[in-house]
Amino acid sequence: MFKYERIINYYETDRMGIVHHSNYIRFLEEARCRWLDSIDLNMVKVESLGIRIPTIEVNCKYKTAVTNDDKIIINLMVEEFNGVRMKVKYKIVNAANDALVMEAYTAHCFTNVEGRPIDLKKYNEEAYEKFNDLVE
Amino acid sequence: MFKYERIINYYETDRMGIVHHSNYIRFLEEARCRWLDSIDLNMVKVESLGIRIPTIEVNCKYKTAVTNDDKIIINLMVEEFNGVRMKVKYKIVNAANDALVMEAYTAHCFTNVEGRPIDLKKYNEEAYEKFNDLVE
Amino acid sequence: MFKYERIINYYETDRMGIVHHSNYIRFLEEARCRWLDSIDLNMVKVESLGIRIPTIEVNCKYKTAVTNDDKIIINLMVEEFNGVRMKVKYKIVNAANDALVMEAYTAHCFTNVEGRPIDLKKYNEEAYEKFNDLVE
Amino acid sequence: MFKYERIINYYETDRMGIVHHSNYIRFLEEARCRWLDSIDLNMVKVESLGIRIPTIEVNCKYKTAVTNDDKIIINLMVEEFNGVRMKVKYKIVNAANDALVMEAYTAHCFTNVEGRPIDLKKYNEEAYEKFNDLVE
Repeated sequence: MFKYERIINYYETDRMGIVHHSNYIRFLEEARCRWLDSIDLNMVKVESLGIRIPTIEVNCKYKTAVTNDDKIIINLMVEEFNGVRMKVKYKIVNAANDALVMEAYTAHCFTNVEGRPIDLKKYNEEAYEKFNDLVE
Repeated sequence: MFKYERIINYYETDRMGIVHHSNYIRFLEEARCRWLDSIDLNMVKVESLGIRIPTIEVNCKYKTAVTNDDKIIINLMVEEFNGVRMKVKYKIVNAANDALVMEAYTAHCFTNVEGRPIDLKKYNEEAYEKFNDLVE
Repeated sequence: MFKYERIINYYETDRMGIVHHSNYIRFLEEARCRWLDSIDLNMVKVESLGIRIPTIEVNCKYKTAVTNDDKIIINLMVEEFNGVRMKVKYKIVNAANDALVMEAYTAHCFTNVEGRPIDLKKYNEEAYEKFNDLVE
Repeated sequence: MFKYERIINYYETDRMGIVHHSNYIRFLEEARCRWLDSIDLNMVKVESLGIRIPTIEVNCKYKTAVTNDDKIIINLMVEEFNGVRMKVKYKIVNAANDALVMEAYTAHCFTNVEGRPIDLKKYNEEAYEKFNDLVE
């Protein structure tokens, strides 16, 4: 389980006075990138290996709203990984009161620079092992 | 079935050279707003009636990528509506070649200005009837 | 003078109930891209010629606010162009009442794919002529 | 002088492989909000006093590009403040090599909830004093 904390920005709110729902998708990516960074495999490094990790599915269930200056904690967990596909689960809570803000998952595949799907195990075993170590 | 066409903007692409996946959530909202506008019930009017329509779930399955200057067609259909909850389905295609870009659905509830859930049927029968006419 | 009309999206508003000021920078780019498209020189074509047009300066003076479902008209004019640098001026008005929404300018240079500045006149005379025809 | 550090997110890059120029406007706001927070006057508090701080002008000069996972330092300084208007200057540098990324300023006025301009000195002297202490 990886934990990522961040404060909501004013520009992430909308006319309803709360975070626009599209921005959570960005927070999830942000958490993934910081998490990959924490295992010494940040996106710059991943890309320099010729690997891309496009998102192929997103599911978000919005529970309670947050707004600017609120602090959220994103809990992230790799649920599935087989070198071809990866599924990541998230639970976002409001740091002030532990209220559940969102439950989500994202699914990803791995491609080369041309966008063709690859099997990480065959393509780059070191990267495969790093991702594989993350599955819980 | 409501159809909404739009061209992809440069600022909607990312480093992978394609539309960033978070932006599709915005395109779905854009299509919903233009569709509500087409039945003379745009968000300004909805809000002036004291009604808010927060998104409570989003699901997107990304199929093929598009990039700047591509034209997409968003097909939108109300799948469920009962005055308390609404589920909307979407199919996005690339106008140039009919390739499937995304399949998605969003779920919404209705609230008053304070964010408390309301039953549209009791709260505003005219608005209820308008939404109800949309279910297919 | 090129005119570009567009409707404000809900996701472009912020907690103040109006368009977030950062989004206007995107509207300016949108107008530039549609304008280049109108002279058969859209960004896909420009990029296929190995040309990039980074923004090197932005200046925006915000006059009156607009919000979702409002329609704006962006008036765009090339003020300076010499093959190395281009300055574009903009005036945004609210289509409903002609109120001045924003006055702005952006400055751009031209680079090759590696990001090195180029002189369009030497690099691609056809593109140079097309841009040059736009100066008023 | 207030310093604010932040890492660039993947979703803030564009097809050119670098941060989209519109996002810097957001980084400036982010720095302002963290700075107001540091003097115990965050936007939630400011808004609860009935005060809004709209942006009336933005000027950005882009010097060198940054991309995802880069760390930037935003240096912020209040240049002018008289209770009616405030001008803030910024210098963004790349934390890795001290390269100048951007020079910018933003101008702001103060309004009440209805959007009418106010003189902070008359409207809320405590807030006036706090802002006034920031001028260098």
